[in-house]
Amino acid sequence: MKNKNPSANENIIRLLNEGAGFISGENIASTLKVSRAAVWKRINILRQKGYFIESLPAKGYRLTKSPDLSLEEIKNSLQKTIFKDIIYFQHIDSTNTHAMELASKGFQEGTVLIADEQIQGRGRLGRKWLSPAGKNLYMSVILKPHILPQDAAFLTLMSAVACASALRRLTSVPVSIKWPNDLMVSDLSECGHATQAGRKLGGILTEIKADMDRIMHAVIGIGININLDAEDMPDEIKDTATSIKNESGDAQSRTLIAVEILKELDRWYNILLNKGKVTIKDKWLKLSSTIGRAVKVTVMDTIFEGTAMDIDENGMLILQLSDNSFKKISAGDVTILR
Amino acid sequence: MKNKNPSANENIIRLLNEGAGFISGENIASTLKVSRAAVWKRINILRQKGYFIESLPAKGYRLTKSPDLSLEEIKNSLQKTIFKDIIYFQHIDSTNTHAMELASKGFQEGTVLIADEQIQGRGRLGRKWLSPAGKNLYMSVILKPHILPQDAAFLTLMSAVACASALRRLTSVPVSIKWPNDLMVSDLSECGHATQAGRKLGGILTEIKADMDRIMHAVIGIGININLDAEDMPDEIKDTATSIKNESGDAQSRTLIAVEILKELDRWYNILLNKGKVTIKDKWLKLSSTIGRAVKVTVMDTIFEGTAMDIDENGMLILQLSDNSFKKISAGDVTILR
Repeated sequence: MKNKNPSANENIIRLLNEGAGFISGENIASTLKVSRAAVWKRINILRQKGYFIESLPAKGYRLTKSPDLSLEEIKNSLQKTIFKDIIYFQHIDSTNTHAMELASKGFQEGTVLIADEQIQGRGRLGRKWLSPAGKNLYMSVILKPHILPQDAAFLTLMSAVACASALRRLTSVPVSIKWPNDLMVSDLSECGHATQAGRKLGGILTEIKADMDRIMHAVIGIGININLDAEDMPDEIKDTATSIKNESGDAQSRTLIAVEILKELDRWYNILLNKGKVTIKDKWLKLSSTIGRAVKVTVMDTIFEGTAMDIDENGMLILQLSDNSFKKISAGDVTILR
Repeated sequence: MKNKNPSANENIIRLLNEGAGFISGENIASTLKVSRAAVWKRINILRQKGYFIESLPAKGYRLTKSPDLSLEEIKNSLQKTIFKDIIYFQHIDSTNTHAMELASKGFQEGTVLIADEQIQGRGRLGRKWLSPAGKNLYMSVILKPHILPQDAAFLTLMSAVACASALRRLTSVPVSIKWPNDLMVSDLSECGHATQAGRKLGGILTEIKADMDRIMHAVIGIGININLDAEDMPDEIKDTATSIKNESGDAQSRTLIAVEILKELDRWYNILLNKGKVTIKDKWLKLSSTIGRAVKVTVMDTIFEGTAMDIDENGMLILQLSDNSFKKISAGDVTILR
């Protein structure tokens, strides 16, 4: 059924969430300036979308449970951010692929694509990103930052900071960042919390369209394993991947995590544009699991071993090799050595 | 009329160009394994495309004049290069815009778009590029280079080298390169040739789609004023622009110039991929009108004055300021000071 008034669903969910208990159909109808029959129809549409809405003739309506991924609640929570246009897909080939197409067609900065399932989820270097339905978070945001193309790596760094900060705030999982784009469960125990050391929770895939002077648009893809169970993981990633649920023991609301990540992204994006790269880098270094560690870095067919010392002003990893010389690496796969 | 056999036109033009004088219809028909009636039909199609083809009943056909921009002759001349797929447009919004779309749809490396006229020709920073019909060269090539995104500036440098080399070989105009992407008439007289000092002949617009690890595709747009007359130029560029014809006094074949540029581009692209950036940089420095000069560089709202010293390994301009400090500039507008 086509939604003639795209904000009607959000408005009803907002009223139901604001009310402490029941809210009458009359009250909803007058607040939203629609008929009571329209409210009743809309309530049924929301029930089909997975909302549990209790109704009692004398009292009205009460929201008892929201779906685990609620577009309406995400939209209601992000009104003060740049992320006002949110498009939801039950299935999509890849949120990043589609977001790049939409950006080329003129969709504005702040547009967010969220999918329940990706058929052709992608990671770095065209690798497959496992994207089953109902479990995880797959989203891409369109940005049009006034930064130089060679600073594009900071979009990845900023997004990793936003994701790690949001996940740390909402969950008990000590999330850290592995250069360049991985969200990991920290293998450095911070408070005695037992973790599956160094396993991958998610990643960031930043793609840009640019000329030499400017970035026309960037798409930041975020994929995070939220409620994926160990038994859902295929053999090839079983030993290296994990999920928030797997680490914390509890299923998490994808709605809350999406909202928190997008709020953090809004915040760190503003910091990048207004305060510049140094603040991003400082925070990134604090959340990094790479810097200061002995690492092996695979760049195409070449392997470098050394100590990860720092990242430079273009986001490149600075490695100190065994002969004490320094090597800057712009793209590669890092393995942290014990 | 739809062209059922896309290479038939090229084949007939090739035979007509190879023959010293007349070539019989029977000869053409047997070589191309088609009927004489098919040859006759095809000859008429080619005449409509602007070829002057003489025919004498006893002798056959003779090509006396080709159109100034001959797709068939361009294709015939580029068989040994990567530029085998050439698409011609009488009008197009922008060859770069369309080439980026085609590259996203999977069109392969080496695809060339050539237009007689651009309705919305673009220069750097979204500036308008004057693109009238029948006068100039507007083309874009799709490349899929295995180079890092931060080396993308070398695609511009390489293309400028290819264009300047080709134009110097074919014409008497002393073409030089102004950082980052302008083709200029050199204001340093090399052999007493009188030039309109420092005027702009053309430019390169490189656009890429990339992630942090690699360039998915790049489009190199080349716009060169070939036969544009001074009276065709609008007031706003009259004092700064020129054309090959304006400089050399003679109208030039756009076919020959397109062929020579694409051959040079094929050559320098191979050099970039196989020998690396240093060879490109060395040649670029030789053709540059920027390095060693006192310049003013406008970067957004800031103006830097100093001496252009070099370009670095990412293609950035290294400027020595009046306090002897060095400033690297990745994007800006250079004015050469007297």
